[in-house]
Amino acid sequence: MVSPAQSSFSPARKTYLVGSRPDIRVPMREIPLTNGSTVVLYDTSGPYTDPAHTADLEKGLPPLRSAWRSPDDTASCGGTGSCGGTLAEGRSSTGALTQRARARRGEITPEMEFVALREGVTPEFVRDELACGRAVLPANVNHPESEPMIIGRNFLVKINANIGNSAVTSSIEEEVDKMRWATRWGADTIMDLSTGRRIHETREWILRNSPVPVGTVPIYQALEKVGGKPEALTWEVFRDTVVEQCEQGVDYMTVHAGVRLAYVPLTARRKTGIVSRGGSILAAWCLAHHAENFLYTNFAELCEILASYDVTFSLGDGLRPGSIHDANDEAQLAELRTLGELTRIAWEHDCQVMVEGPGHVPMNKIKENVDLQMEICSEAPFYTLGPLTTDVAPGYDHITSAIGAAMIGWYGTAMLCYVTPKEHLGLPDRDDVKAGVIAYKIAAHAADLAKGHPGAQAWDDALSDARFEFRWEDQFNLSLDPDTARSFHDETLPAAPAKTAHFCSMCGPHFCSMRITQDVRAYAERNGLTDGEALTAGMREKAEEFRREGGRVYLPMPALPGEE
Amino acid sequence: MVSPAQSSFSPARKTYLVGSRPDIRVPMREIPLTNGSTVVLYDTSGPYTDPAHTADLEKGLPPLRSAWRSPDDTASCGGTGSCGGTLAEGRSSTGALTQRARARRGEITPEMEFVALREGVTPEFVRDELACGRAVLPANVNHPESEPMIIGRNFLVKINANIGNSAVTSSIEEEVDKMRWATRWGADTIMDLSTGRRIHETREWILRNSPVPVGTVPIYQALEKVGGKPEALTWEVFRDTVVEQCEQGVDYMTVHAGVRLAYVPLTARRKTGIVSRGGSILAAWCLAHHAENFLYTNFAELCEILASYDVTFSLGDGLRPGSIHDANDEAQLAELRTLGELTRIAWEHDCQVMVEGPGHVPMNKIKENVDLQMEICSEAPFYTLGPLTTDVAPGYDHITSAIGAAMIGWYGTAMLCYVTPKEHLGLPDRDDVKAGVIAYKIAAHAADLAKGHPGAQAWDDALSDARFEFRWEDQFNLSLDPDTARSFHDETLPAAPAKTAHFCSMCGPHFCSMRITQDVRAYAERNGLTDGEALTAGMREKAEEFRREGGRVYLPMPALPGEE
Repeated sequence: MVSPAQSSFSPARKTYLVGSRPDIRVPMREIPLTNGSTVVLYDTSGPYTDPAHTADLEKGLPPLRSAWRSPDDTASCGGTGSCGGTLAEGRSSTGALTQRARARRGEITPEMEFVALREGVTPEFVRDELACGRAVLPANVNHPESEPMIIGRNFLVKINANIGNSAVTSSIEEEVDKMRWATRWGADTIMDLSTGRRIHETREWILRNSPVPVGTVPIYQALEKVGGKPEALTWEVFRDTVVEQCEQGVDYMTVHAGVRLAYVPLTARRKTGIVSRGGSILAAWCLAHHAENFLYTNFAELCEILASYDVTFSLGDGLRPGSIHDANDEAQLAELRTLGELTRIAWEHDCQVMVEGPGHVPMNKIKENVDLQMEICSEAPFYTLGPLTTDVAPGYDHITSAIGAAMIGWYGTAMLCYVTPKEHLGLPDRDDVKAGVIAYKIAAHAADLAKGHPGAQAWDDALSDARFEFRWEDQFNLSLDPDTARSFHDETLPAAPAKTAHFCSMCGPHFCSMRITQDVRAYAERNGLTDGEALTAGMREKAEEFRREGGRVYLPMPALPGEE
Repeated sequence: MVSPAQSSFSPARKTYLVGSRPDIRVPMREIPLTNGSTVVLYDTSGPYTDPAHTADLEKGLPPLRSAWRSPDDTASCGGTGSCGGTLAEGRSSTGALTQRARARRGEITPEMEFVALREGVTPEFVRDELACGRAVLPANVNHPESEPMIIGRNFLVKINANIGNSAVTSSIEEEVDKMRWATRWGADTIMDLSTGRRIHETREWILRNSPVPVGTVPIYQALEKVGGKPEALTWEVFRDTVVEQCEQGVDYMTVHAGVRLAYVPLTARRKTGIVSRGGSILAAWCLAHHAENFLYTNFAELCEILASYDVTFSLGDGLRPGSIHDANDEAQLAELRTLGELTRIAWEHDCQVMVEGPGHVPMNKIKENVDLQMEICSEAPFYTLGPLTTDVAPGYDHITSAIGAAMIGWYGTAMLCYVTPKEHLGLPDRDDVKAGVIAYKIAAHAADLAKGHPGAQAWDDALSDARFEFRWEDQFNLSLDPDTARSFHDETLPAAPAKTAHFCSMCGPHFCSMRITQDVRAYAERNGLTDGEALTAGMREKAEEFRREGGRVYLPMPALPGEE
């Protein structure tokens, strides 16, 4: 049986935009409509939805970016999962240039060309945005399986899905399945937040099979290495963990280098203290040693390591608010100022950088977050969790946070980290992963529309046209989730004729406004009644004719099951 | 078996705030917490969640407002469903004064006192808001079963749930159950949009059993009376239908009097024409007769009828946009200007008025809608459907629209009409009704928070406190939907000890940031480490002590099933 995660979106076809060399093939989803036209959408689902691809999780995805490697880049670990389970010591980067460094040199890499095609912009625009730091293109030289994508506020808003097992539950197989399921529904990146045993092996399976960039929080694995005791952490353990993950191919890493010793007391009067796992671990370390955060004091060396693999920094907001009460407080803003300082240091090392953001924020304080981040962090891309706009709805935090995510995306956030319905309550299963991804695709697209992103509205227009013209199959196929749209329609009107009916069960045939409008419009156009002035000036004879033409606005309809 | 719609929210208790007379008893939900405190929330669920109440749908709810009647008000139809099924001709209001008229006379009615207690404001404030038209208190003298509530932007944001059968599906019993289910989860009003057979009887059952105001769109029933042919409608048929519904006790009515003949051609270039059912019916009538909308030309007489029962106008936006493409276009704005004109006419008749709004609107155009409505309609309460912020997610329009609803509520909309997951696809069942209500309670509360409504944040704070202190049961009981929060937690950690565990399955015990924070905070406070300056100035001995105290920040934890 084919896994649901890799079935194609029939009747949609996988198509490829080909670049200046034949191996630059940008995947898109082409949806054929019943009126003969097609709609082409951005596609994150990877080779799994291409019928020409035979998935083999043991083998991993084809290393599409291997052939693009410059001679001065490091050798990869093979892309076949062969290095799984062993620490890849001795193999280290020999100093690959980052996409940022190449952009600053004026170079257009195959990755840049790929994302330019994918976003519908020029390669020069991509290069400029990367060079000035307003965008990142996470692409570890050791993760050649990933399809290049770009994160920046002048591109489509992206979403991330967190997966990963905990000490309490779930298996590697489940996590790989969640990764494929998340990208199928639209996740632009995934983060593996595993904290249990077999962290390395889980990550290896995910990396070798992931068509999207993979992020991690290395402090989790470092903590496992020291028996779960924060005060036992050292810079050396952390550094070795980072090198291990760089070798494997992690594309971006959350580093809580902004949780400085002096900021920890600022959280004392909070309702919910420190809610970032990484932030709380480092706060515990700082207090235990009464010393400055070792990530802060060793940041320059960290930059050198990440730069040599082109691993992108995601500067973690370890002091993000965990409740409406704590939003935009001094602890958060103090850390943000440090993240600005670190952004500029990382840029000096030609590292790519994005900056993480809240959290829980009421709507009236969201814009302030974005404005401050842009100013303080010199426009480095903002990557936010939610934010949740209220604390009172556990079980529905994909919705409380989709509200905040849509708004913060509109205001300028480049990537939105999803929240699932299980947030605060438990580990998300695959249904929760889908629910979170769909809610965030909605938020991201709503933000694209509000920002006036060129081309974003074409999708809405195509679906609205299909809706108005009662092309039900087209409406389903154009939906963010065709399966759900189709099944909801079938619940009340399951018979096949309902798929061509000029109404739905919501209103029934006599009250379908769209149908009435169509009749009205057809009549008005046929008779030149398209001008308000002329109408009120008087054309009563036209009205007579309208009545004579049939005495009714409705067309005769066949009876449907259940219709009265 | 007790219907789920009337089971109490155990352990929450139904309590009542008593006013200046013993029969002014305002229902509230009191949630006892395990730390000995209580949280009291606004409650819309009616007598059904009071164990002292024995529900009898045949008999209907007690007519609590009957005793408040002034001698000059009309006699009720009995409140027992006895007038069901027959047109109550001959029984008409003898000229009740509206809440607006009484407010303008300086009178504080029992209804005003009731809502003042319910909202935590003074009765004088309620009266002032009603007198100037910035709020409405929908309370037909013939619906004495309803618990008074107020709609206005200086009060809590309210939500409406649409129910009602169509020609295609569902029964009266199902609709009454949906009404009770919707109010249980927080619907402040419901609209009965039935269009099939037995419209009068369905409405009678709903009215006699509804603890919240009931709205309708009378043109639907009028259309049924003329065989479903818009062009056969007459002012007389419509007027008689309105009187019939006033007699029954409908609290507010949507009237599409702003769909003027000259505006119909303005919809010609739209993607989705006219998507309001009422709007399309009246547009068809206007074109068929080449005449001005009979609701517009007879508006003064309509005002007299509604005023005499104190039925509130909901001026329908028949030309609201049905797609992102059509948002804020000239058709919509032309109608809005007419609604402003009609608002002032209705006010001259001392009618209460609210004004309906869109629809489908991208985020960047939402604020303009509210600002224009306030200006053009002289601050009459705005009552909006959504708006949906994108068209591409049928099956998830409770989310696409909760985003818009939260924002428009923040900007000043007084009541949000819910959208369910079935929007555009089918008739909502009871699960959809709950999903829509919960999404809209989230939007309304997020708006209250953003507006800085006094007291709104206390709920979030109480839940965040419970979360931080691992009072799981309190967290569940304080949730908008305790059942879902509890069951999601149980899915991954079902054992009873997990309810007192200081972590959840999301992170497991070693990675629980809140737990680490608590340990850090306790240690810091014990040792005076609550000042950043002092910390950095050096107190290394304290750090030594922290390590000596146990060498770990975690407390020993009992093993749980599944924990590794």
